Amino acid sequence: MEIKSADNQNVKKWEKLRQKKYRDEYGLFIVQEKHLISEAISKGVLEHLLVREGCSNPFNKEAITVSDKVMKKLSSNVSLNDYIAICRIEKNELPQANSYILLENVQDPGNVGTIIRTAYSFGYDCVILSEECASLYNEKTIQASQGALFHIPVVTMNISEAIGKLHKMGVKIFATTLSSSHFISETKPFEKYGLLFGNEGQGLKEETVKLCDENIKIEMANFESLNVAVACGICAYYIKNNLK
Amino acid sequence: MEIKSADNQNVKKWEKLRQKKYRDEYGLFIVQEKHLISEAISKGVLEHLLVREGCSNPFNKEAITVSDKVMKKLSSNVSLNDYIAICRIEKNELPQANSYILLENVQDPGNVGTIIRTAYSFGYDCVILSEECASLYNEKTIQASQGALFHIPVVTMNISEAIGKLHKMGVKIFATTLSSSHFISETKPFEKYGLLFGNEGQGLKEETVKLCDENIKIEMANFESLNVAVACGICAYYIKNNLK
Repeated sequence: MEIKSADNQNVKKWEKLRQKKYRDEYGLFIVQEKHLISEAISKGVLEHLLVREGCSNPFNKEAITVSDKVMKKLSSNVSLNDYIAICRIEKNELPQANSYILLENVQDPGNVGTIIRTAYSFGYDCVILSEECASLYNEKTIQASQGALFHIPVVTMNISEAIGKLHKMGVKIFATTLSSSHFISETKPFEKYGLLFGNEGQGLKEETVKLCDENIKIEMANFESLNVAVACGICAYYIKNNLK
Repeated sequence: MEIKSADNQNVKKWEKLRQKKYRDEYGLFIVQEKHLISEAISKGVLEHLLVREGCSNPFNKEAITVSDKVMKKLSSNVSLNDYIAICRIEKNELPQANSYILLENVQDPGNVGTIIRTAYSFGYDCVILSEECASLYNEKTIQASQGALFHIPVVTMNISEAIGKLHKMGVKIFATTLSSSHFISETKPFEKYGLLFGNEGQGLKEETVKLCDENIKIEMANFESLNVAVACGICAYYIKNNLK
């Protein structure tokens, strides 16, 4: 199959997938980098593979050949992509597991993606995003996750509801906050736990902190200010590896 | 003083400060956010303060009133800035100190800025950037540093030369690399040390690793892949706080 015109109905539809509203409506999202497309194929979520005319297809999957014009319309990169995958959104249910990372209102897609990458690297079982977080299927989230979103279940849901459900499963929640908290190195481990991080500027909402079991913070010399993905990396590493 | 025309010679000059070449030539850089401008003023590097017409000046410094057109030309933000500071680049010399963070060819200005923020938060004494790193005075570096660049000396220099000088000061260098390395939790502390991190995709150059005293890595369950600013945060925290 071949699509030459940028006015093609499918191209117009796919272009809208930059916006969350249409990703939700169509249940589809775009993947743009070669190694990420390979991961999406392994995961079994590929719907359509687009290959730019003149490029060979390295994926061993049937492809639609598209013109440069079409590719340009669908690429968010400055340089033209050779491949684009249109993928299917699969909803994950909250799994019964041992370790979780929860994010409340983390706005930057780079931070959300980086945290998913960290969670997968340290063997966490699930990432939970509040509904106000940057979208999982935003191109910058996907890019920053380096494909980790295809390996670890990520669930988007109301954060209070998530904490309630986790409590019923016997999971203790650590809130990262500066007030009435103790240092992570003084923390005792739990068998099942979740680490909760808040918004880049405001941190966690007070009412959310109240739902949690312990407040923790990171020892710092100055500033009391870390990027949220860095703070998450330190807590995720330390609690996984040093509290056993 | 007042500048209304976007064709004003100074405005044309300042606009060029988006490019590293001109920042180096003029010895100037742009700061765009209110709290960052305050930090630049405290640091004593302010050359010109521009305030958009109709806005009050909260800085207690003499300002140039500029038109919306001028502000638009100098702003990199989508929304118009109310204030812009033109600041003087001050060269730092490599200080005699106890703890350093060194970066080789870290390309993303967000990563460089985030690492400077982390270094300052954990009380490191100096950050050293190789000449191929993203520029310290790139607007995204400044933004991600959250002003930390005004508090901690940052030196841009050849990385082999930096390691040589640090060795002469009795500073041991830890290279973060996956090959022939041991885990950070198995590392013994030194009185004076530097932590060295490499490029986002390629890591450290082999010849640079050879110059270092110890190779270290972070314990991971999967993937062996972390964002460089996250990896730096974990090592910087752990070595500063847990190896005493």
